[in-house]
Amino acid sequence: MGYKVSKAVVKRLPKYYRYLKQIKSKGIVRVSSSELSQITGLTPSQIRQDLNHFGGFGQQGYGYNVEELIGELQNILGMTVKYNAIILGAGNIGQAIAQYTGLSDTKFNITAIFDKSKKLVGKKISDIEVNPIDYLEPYLKKNDVHIAIIAVPLESAQELADICMDNGVKGIWNYAPLDLKVREGVRVENVHLDDSLFTLTFYLTNPWAAEKK
Amino acid sequence: MGYKVSKAVVKRLPKYYRYLKQIKSKGIVRVSSSELSQITGLTPSQIRQDLNHFGGFGQQGYGYNVEELIGELQNILGMTVKYNAIILGAGNIGQAIAQYTGLSDTKFNITAIFDKSKKLVGKKISDIEVNPIDYLEPYLKKNDVHIAIIAVPLESAQELADICMDNGVKGIWNYAPLDLKVREGVRVENVHLDDSLFTLTFYLTNPWAAEKK
Repeated sequence: MGYKVSKAVVKRLPKYYRYLKQIKSKGIVRVSSSELSQITGLTPSQIRQDLNHFGGFGQQGYGYNVEELIGELQNILGMTVKYNAIILGAGNIGQAIAQYTGLSDTKFNITAIFDKSKKLVGKKISDIEVNPIDYLEPYLKKNDVHIAIIAVPLESAQELADICMDNGVKGIWNYAPLDLKVREGVRVENVHLDDSLFTLTFYLTNPWAAEKK
Repeated sequence: MGYKVSKAVVKRLPKYYRYLKQIKSKGIVRVSSSELSQITGLTPSQIRQDLNHFGGFGQQGYGYNVEELIGELQNILGMTVKYNAIILGAGNIGQAIAQYTGLSDTKFNITAIFDKSKKLVGKKISDIEVNPIDYLEPYLKKNDVHIAIIAVPLESAQELADICMDNGVKGIWNYAPLDLKVREGVRVENVHLDDSLFTLTFYLTNPWAAEKK
């Protein structure tokens, strides 16, 4: 390892993980790249190439061991690393993330939630008490936080991201509707939910433009 | 018009729209593809190619009129079409979508919300009353619904999507953690929020893999 991988490849890895888990839940123990191709809509050679970036997991003519490949993907995706995360903003999105149960396979760990609203401070969400936003900086100074999940309105997102980066946070999962500016060495994933809605309305409006799967 | 456009191009269009709105809010009236390149991280020629799919909006050596291009993108993305949408599931995600104010520039219209929980039925979210899920089918038979937003748990997502498709819904925006099976002529956009989290934890775990922007 030590070479670059395109973001398109990286973005397909969680998809493989998701499909393999579905396959495993049906009791299937071995899968070929052609079978994966039928489920994912990608070509067998693309699937083999993607996975070969991380070592050759399959065997020619024999396919992939489903459970092994799931384990490899969990390692590759960082699901076996204990990342501490905090949520900024205890509105609907912040609450949805705090209550999301789909991370139970991972070591991902939400340690604190912050909000500026007096109505929300003190409330418990998934057993985590909402702290006032003023506690953010002292909390970051005392605790090891790897990821900040930003679920506050546009206006305060960059300022809070800056406080997090000033205090050693290296990953930002951003739900605020702007592309955050981050520093060298910090990773950000911006989630723009309406981008996907507009992709949908694009295809409804321009059905001629649709590619075959 | 009448040819295919790759999904990668389509997915960049909402991004252009977002950046152009930011530019416009700063009072900028004209922008070159090189300037757009600096903001978006895409190459000028990619930007020109993407936009040329939909007609040549810019002028050589003169750039794009920001307001005009925003208007064109609104047309292309279907934001000027009156789409009626319903939300299935009034939990955190359903509520977040119902309360989202970022669609005020569009003609997108949420007409009804449904949930099976007796605690939520009758509650008002953004002035829309939550209906019992049993009312879904009669509602679809009486009203013109273009898009169903699925924000229910995994178990009931496919069944509800089937009811919607049986009754003429042509677009599905799916937040349930599975890739819905849809029929010929129906478009689905699946939102898998944790795919983007795992992209983030991938890069935190494998910093060697990061591409330059």
